[in-house]
Amino acid sequence: MLELGVCYYPEQWPRTKWEEDAARMVELGLAWVRIGEFAWSHIEPKSGVFQWDWFDDALDVLGKAGLKIIIGTPTAAPPKWLVDRYPDILPVDARGAVRKFGARRHYCFSSQRYRLEAARITEAVAQRYGKHPFVHAWQTDNEYGDHDTIHSYSRAALHAFREWLAARYGTIEELNRAWGTTFWSMHYNSFDEVDLPNNLVEEPSPTHLVDYFRFSSDQVKSFNKVQVDIIRRHSPGRPVTHNFMSQNTDFDHYKVGEDIDIASWDVYPMGGLINGRLSAEEKQRYLRVGDPDQTAFNHDLYRAVGRGRAWVMEQQPGPVNWASHNQSPADGMVRLWTWLAYAHGIDMVSYFRWRQAPFAQEQFHAGLLLPNSEEDQGYKEVVQVIAEMKLLPKGEARGKAAVALLLDYESRFATRALPQGRDYAASAIALDWYSAVSRLGVDVDFIGQHSDLEGYRLVLAPDLVIPDPDFIARLKASGAKALFGPRSGSKTRDMHIPADLPPGVLGDLLDFRVTRVESLPPFQSETVLYGNSSHETSTWRETIRTTETVLATFQGDYRPDSPAVIGNDIARYCATLPRDELLLKLMGDTFAWAGVSSLPDLGDLRLARRGRLHFAFNYGSTVAAVPAAQNAEFLIGNRALAPVDVAVWLDGDKGATAE
Amino acid sequence: MLELGVCYYPEQWPRTKWEEDAARMVELGLAWVRIGEFAWSHIEPKSGVFQWDWFDDALDVLGKAGLKIIIGTPTAAPPKWLVDRYPDILPVDARGAVRKFGARRHYCFSSQRYRLEAARITEAVAQRYGKHPFVHAWQTDNEYGDHDTIHSYSRAALHAFREWLAARYGTIEELNRAWGTTFWSMHYNSFDEVDLPNNLVEEPSPTHLVDYFRFSSDQVKSFNKVQVDIIRRHSPGRPVTHNFMSQNTDFDHYKVGEDIDIASWDVYPMGGLINGRLSAEEKQRYLRVGDPDQTAFNHDLYRAVGRGRAWVMEQQPGPVNWASHNQSPADGMVRLWTWLAYAHGIDMVSYFRWRQAPFAQEQFHAGLLLPNSEEDQGYKEVVQVIAEMKLLPKGEARGKAAVALLLDYESRFATRALPQGRDYAASAIALDWYSAVSRLGVDVDFIGQHSDLEGYRLVLAPDLVIPDPDFIARLKASGAKALFGPRSGSKTRDMHIPADLPPGVLGDLLDFRVTRVESLPPFQSETVLYGNSSHETSTWRETIRTTETVLATFQGDYRPDSPAVIGNDIARYCATLPRDELLLKLMGDTFAWAGVSSLPDLGDLRLARRGRLHFAFNYGSTVAAVPAAQNAEFLIGNRALAPVDVAVWLDGDKGATAE
Amino acid sequence: MLELGVCYYPEQWPRTKWEEDAARMVELGLAWVRIGEFAWSHIEPKSGVFQWDWFDDALDVLGKAGLKIIIGTPTAAPPKWLVDRYPDILPVDARGAVRKFGARRHYCFSSQRYRLEAARITEAVAQRYGKHPFVHAWQTDNEYGDHDTIHSYSRAALHAFREWLAARYGTIEELNRAWGTTFWSMHYNSFDEVDLPNNLVEEPSPTHLVDYFRFSSDQVKSFNKVQVDIIRRHSPGRPVTHNFMSQNTDFDHYKVGEDIDIASWDVYPMGGLINGRLSAEEKQRYLRVGDPDQTAFNHDLYRAVGRGRAWVMEQQPGPVNWASHNQSPADGMVRLWTWLAYAHGIDMVSYFRWRQAPFAQEQFHAGLLLPNSEEDQGYKEVVQVIAEMKLLPKGEARGKAAVALLLDYESRFATRALPQGRDYAASAIALDWYSAVSRLGVDVDFIGQHSDLEGYRLVLAPDLVIPDPDFIARLKASGAKALFGPRSGSKTRDMHIPADLPPGVLGDLLDFRVTRVESLPPFQSETVLYGNSSHETSTWRETIRTTETVLATFQGDYRPDSPAVIGNDIARYCATLPRDELLLKLMGDTFAWAGVSSLPDLGDLRLARRGRLHFAFNYGSTVAAVPAAQNAEFLIGNRALAPVDVAVWLDGDKGATAE
Repeated sequence: MLELGVCYYPEQWPRTKWEEDAARMVELGLAWVRIGEFAWSHIEPKSGVFQWDWFDDALDVLGKAGLKIIIGTPTAAPPKWLVDRYPDILPVDARGAVRKFGARRHYCFSSQRYRLEAARITEAVAQRYGKHPFVHAWQTDNEYGDHDTIHSYSRAALHAFREWLAARYGTIEELNRAWGTTFWSMHYNSFDEVDLPNNLVEEPSPTHLVDYFRFSSDQVKSFNKVQVDIIRRHSPGRPVTHNFMSQNTDFDHYKVGEDIDIASWDVYPMGGLINGRLSAEEKQRYLRVGDPDQTAFNHDLYRAVGRGRAWVMEQQPGPVNWASHNQSPADGMVRLWTWLAYAHGIDMVSYFRWRQAPFAQEQFHAGLLLPNSEEDQGYKEVVQVIAEMKLLPKGEARGKAAVALLLDYESRFATRALPQGRDYAASAIALDWYSAVSRLGVDVDFIGQHSDLEGYRLVLAPDLVIPDPDFIARLKASGAKALFGPRSGSKTRDMHIPADLPPGVLGDLLDFRVTRVESLPPFQSETVLYGNSSHETSTWRETIRTTETVLATFQGDYRPDSPAVIGNDIARYCATLPRDELLLKLMGDTFAWAGVSSLPDLGDLRLARRGRLHFAFNYGSTVAAVPAAQNAEFLIGNRALAPVDVAVWLDGDKGATAE
Repeated sequence: MLELGVCYYPEQWPRTKWEEDAARMVELGLAWVRIGEFAWSHIEPKSGVFQWDWFDDALDVLGKAGLKIIIGTPTAAPPKWLVDRYPDILPVDARGAVRKFGARRHYCFSSQRYRLEAARITEAVAQRYGKHPFVHAWQTDNEYGDHDTIHSYSRAALHAFREWLAARYGTIEELNRAWGTTFWSMHYNSFDEVDLPNNLVEEPSPTHLVDYFRFSSDQVKSFNKVQVDIIRRHSPGRPVTHNFMSQNTDFDHYKVGEDIDIASWDVYPMGGLINGRLSAEEKQRYLRVGDPDQTAFNHDLYRAVGRGRAWVMEQQPGPVNWASHNQSPADGMVRLWTWLAYAHGIDMVSYFRWRQAPFAQEQFHAGLLLPNSEEDQGYKEVVQVIAEMKLLPKGEARGKAAVALLLDYESRFATRALPQGRDYAASAIALDWYSAVSRLGVDVDFIGQHSDLEGYRLVLAPDLVIPDPDFIARLKASGAKALFGPRSGSKTRDMHIPADLPPGVLGDLLDFRVTRVESLPPFQSETVLYGNSSHETSTWRETIRTTETVLATFQGDYRPDSPAVIGNDIARYCATLPRDELLLKLMGDTFAWAGVSSLPDLGDLRLARRGRLHFAFNYGSTVAAVPAAQNAEFLIGNRALAPVDVAVWLDGDKGATAE
Repeated sequence: MLELGVCYYPEQWPRTKWEEDAARMVELGLAWVRIGEFAWSHIEPKSGVFQWDWFDDALDVLGKAGLKIIIGTPTAAPPKWLVDRYPDILPVDARGAVRKFGARRHYCFSSQRYRLEAARITEAVAQRYGKHPFVHAWQTDNEYGDHDTIHSYSRAALHAFREWLAARYGTIEELNRAWGTTFWSMHYNSFDEVDLPNNLVEEPSPTHLVDYFRFSSDQVKSFNKVQVDIIRRHSPGRPVTHNFMSQNTDFDHYKVGEDIDIASWDVYPMGGLINGRLSAEEKQRYLRVGDPDQTAFNHDLYRAVGRGRAWVMEQQPGPVNWASHNQSPADGMVRLWTWLAYAHGIDMVSYFRWRQAPFAQEQFHAGLLLPNSEEDQGYKEVVQVIAEMKLLPKGEARGKAAVALLLDYESRFATRALPQGRDYAASAIALDWYSAVSRLGVDVDFIGQHSDLEGYRLVLAPDLVIPDPDFIARLKASGAKALFGPRSGSKTRDMHIPADLPPGVLGDLLDFRVTRVESLPPFQSETVLYGNSSHETSTWRETIRTTETVLATFQGDYRPDSPAVIGNDIARYCATLPRDELLLKLMGDTFAWAGVSSLPDLGDLRLARRGRLHFAFNYGSTVAAVPAAQNAEFLIGNRALAPVDVAVWLDGDKGATAE
């Protein structure tokens, strides 16, 4: 069953408002409240001087009102007195400048001093409230990776990187081999000679860079793990979560996910649209509803990161402040996003924030309440959601999908280190693929290379640059079919070209060799003949040699008739980046090939299924016909779905919806 | 009566040329000459070693020829020996890099050492020449704010900022309250913990930033005041001016203006066009005549800054060197600009510079003479101006306008600190409003919130973000009507949202609440229905709730029929940014409402009135009909005004021109 | 006769592959192999510890197989142990940040320590292998100027700059005069006060900047000379070369060229296209064949730099890795480029590289072999070239052209220091002129102002900003006619405007004065009437006064009928930048005037002549008719030239080709 919550900052409001706020939350129907994640200087205003009374009081007020409390550890924002005492905890940017106090996330993950201090404050909070009756869950820190804070170039990072390299490689000669230091006289005599990969004359070895990305990712995992261990020791039985950011790929979320109980993430579709992959024309079309796929993509991703348990910790309740432009969501979108989350397997949605702050950095960030405590639009939509919740049966769980989409973080590090072409954007490619799947009405699960493949009929791998041989073996054994995007298998773990050319270990699935790659400028497109129709692709093109069936070919002056898509009984590979119509068509054919049932293109309609419940969401500007079975029983809405509207139904018998 | 002058650098030319130059200036008809403002290293080539003879000599030559001399204090360019002795006087940029010697303005306003040195050289010059018979006026420094030199991030700035904050807030808890440091754990225990707002991980508190802008602005005022006091002590009765830059909003010009006798400014319309608000198509159309409103806007502004007394210290005489592209003005524009200045109340126009320098940074900057002393185009146009001056009656003074345009510097600091949308550009908005007023033939005065409102029928406030309650009270009492742009009243002095929502104290004039704001990307426009016609607006949209009359409404999918413009008997408010036709129409209706007479759209023609004199200026490419009364007496030109041409006439009786 | 070679890195491959690689090179028909230029850390893995055995071995294997060896000195990439011992050898960027180890070219040309170290390793290598029987040539360092490494802002550079200035000017007062330090109080009391021109508030004096560019250029010359002297001492009789980069103008290539025996350069036309002067539409058209003129331009330039002896040291053999986008060359282009080089007087073409590296920074850079040692496309094309070589007579030498194109490095420094308009791009202008010449079928030689002018009928000077009076005198005496682009003669050696206005000493050839210059924004074009036809020009316009014949005039509102092109019997001058049709027409008329025979516009066809051999190259996408004489004897190809194809023929008698 869906539960709702809200983020609240008692320290920002007069004590006199707390009871009223808590009562209104409960009256609205909220079950959860998150507090504390930026309260360090309020808890410990001076070194070693703790001020617990207000926090005790806040827990008391909120808990007694009937709310379950999530405490966030306050480590995302160390106080000024701490920074002044230990200036080395500040992160250093790639240009070598110290990033100063005055906002948040001003710490270097490699600072041993900060690890001690973060552990100290976490222990203090966890010890005091770990078994508090109103505390039901914990959040570590806040939004790892926000504002490019994973990568620091401090002295602490330098030393930690050297240690990490020594642990990874054992001997300096093994590092020399992996990094290819026979190139450009880059040989190292010891780990102490290795430097961080910033401010170079040219690009460093890509292996140097990927190792730095891996190291930085591991630093997040170990930083987080310290807090989780402390919380678990003091607060047994309460789940621990972290609120991840949408589509951040600076660290391996699966690895951090392993250490927590629930993955949560922060849902801001308006900024996501503005900063996102779509064209200006599409952004205008979806301006106040957002990219129809980006939010669902992340729900599905974080369901995997949380190994099935996922929350939304911060749901945008109106316009916010941080994008280059901050449009309002259409009225109805807060409701739509809430149901979308639930449909995709999210069990708790917490709105950020209860009341808009009239001061400081986020004063343009909407809340459920306006700064003067009036109900804002989001509040009214939550009222509607809570009324609608009562119309749905309880206990429906998101099932396993037939299709798995592979997101591999090391592969993202690889293309970031060695993009080869300025316009190659792995995140956008994966989202394009997801979008094609969604437009065909098919549900999807995310997987990493570590994931169990049991039960999947089809694995989609848009950008698996560094395949793990074990994963390929398990995939081959699983019986699932697979569709690979270009560059898949193009690098080894050491960021080398595979010995007998790409696709390296992917050759176990499909017999071909990539003999040439091209990255193409934005003004160039390549023509691909697929079946009887011609399509344009762009950005990337490979020349491949194969004994497999050629499913599509390049046309035009350059190497006409060379294969663009190939396949056999178990796998298919694209030698370019299919988009739009070609991608839709290819995806539809791939579903048929893999025995996955799908629907004709849904346009701006999106579907999702949770247990027996079918959901439809209309991102378009006209009424859409919902593809429900004839005898479907509508619980919310009906077959004619208005823009920005949601329908929920139970199938009578097997309907037209995809599986 | 209009006087003319020129900027001259005797130190740059052989002594043998001085007499001839002076004689030619006088022969041309110039009355003023400005010298000395970059001569420090020539006056004091080594520490304490003064070289006065050449300066004495130059004053003598110029003065005896009949010229009135303005001495500029040489503090905009400290010599190298001084910088080497006190490296701390150099400014520091936001990235933390010291900005080095080798050009000009290489000093930090907060350097106490530089204040002493600037006072020392000013005293030396003022003492020697304060009562010199040929010295008739003084200029302090040169172009405060050029090349982003108001904001320095030096140690000196840090310490001065802390002192400024202590003086402003008294206690650190008051600062904590104002800055909202309960947010993100930003609490300070003492003023010594506060840092400058550069190199942060994210944006600082907007109050932190606005206070830094206020502080930086105050540093300019106090830096300037030191020199003014010294000059007044040594040179009683001679007016002191400073040559401001066009539309710089890094410091509060009214506050510096309070301390001087005459405001002057430097008129460079060609670069102003290239860097300015217009579209590429418009820039092409006006390429060699400039933005038809930007120059007049600044004349009117600096008339207010100088409390009625304003000069042009540097008038562009041909193409210059500093913009991204440096086109030539059309032949005739130097004459046009000179008359434009006079029409807008300027009493002295000084051309920059006498002769083009064949060396150093500005060798592509035209003068009245070419480097080989031949007359350049500008010289010939000055000859024409001087001939025409004789055709006009003397003693006509610019009168008070019926319309006041409010430019509030703190509001500019506010939107700079918290733009909320990348395309919100307050300077361009104010200029758009001014342009609409000008196209309707209406004269305007600039005001600040401190200004006397006596006599105005209409106050235009395009961006009054932080209204002063006293100003609102005086406005209400004044009987003037007012038109406010969006965001007006949206912040308190502490940069908070007003307690009962925006527009805060503006609510005393007009009953409404802003319940939502949006900043919109450039590809989005909103439709506004005004009367019977639809218009497009962009960039900014607010949702407001009001009991007042709704004058225009938004249309389209999002919140259709919500108010776009509202009003009552005394005030009107725009919930979006009207532009082009909508702005013209709204402005015209507002004039009618306020009882201000106006004309139909003048297109590329511009009018101005000074006493009994009416002026017309044609910025278009075809002949324009001047809207003079039937019995108007033309003193310069006639009714058919050629492109780049000027007409001046006296009304017979009340004509068609606006008041 | 054309010889071919390849770049090889034995240190990057297992010892077991060397014999096979060497044998395949010889079997393919290669004569030369370049090794060693990034091998420092392999030769001297620790300070003073030399590891010669592998290098001895490699020379032995390659030499015995029959290859002539070029050794590159390894100074472009000092090892980490050296950088750690002497951190001051690292270069410093304009922001003041040290540019770190991890790639290549991480040294400051002004570091005295690095000069010693570079001399030490060069001496060690030259001493050991100077008289080695298989060593036939030397290359100094690698690609001076790559990644903006000419300009360093280190302490070493500062001190060296002061010494250079003292040597240039003798007294500080002479520097003050030249730099115009009476401007902006910039006076210096001693050379020790002078600083490097980075991180200023505004631009420094242009003379300051040009002197810094001259200094930096001289540092390259003296750095290189040290190595050349050492090599000559130890390896008499073997030619020394350096592999220059395409169109780098950060240092005076003629001056470095004086000290070596052969100029070589590195040919990468695909990145050259992507980064180059053409419009997006043109780039799409030539995507996989490259700019039809840029490569030939550089062949002709480096033939001049090498005083007649020029090699290609690195020829792109397929797609590479370093441009923003990296498309593949069309199949056939490697052959075309090889023949193009030969046609333009290149005697040796060496491909970069033998085998694609599967690791490190350039793993996306193609070789003749794929990483798995399979033959890549380039290899196959070399096979064809070698077969075709046998069809051509030996001993044909490139003759002297009738037309000389002047490229003056100091003039490039001048416009870089003082561009006056953002879009003025001297490199693109010179290439535009070259392109017009080439489209009219005319061969060209490059000259500097130092060059002998004997035998030229026409000198083209697109951007001779700083003419040397001696050059102008020699030009006048030579009997050659001359065509000058705008800005020619506009600055003196001190970067001043000439005393009696531009064109200064050019006035000895043509009587005119430039009284005004304009730089124009990209949205503006000016109309020029030339003969009976109107054309558009852009970017730059001058007003000139002249007694010479006016060949073309400006039209439009601004100064209509003012001269756009003028001329007399010996010289012509353009007061704007002719492009496209106007440039072609003007160039054609200029050829006729100078008695140089030319052809009608060749479109995408290009011709070249080497001795009796005529070459044609088709950069278009359709078959082109080769303008060979009727009785021409085709040695390669025929009259109907396919896209990407090459034809070579001998004239029967005098044919239609240009001379």
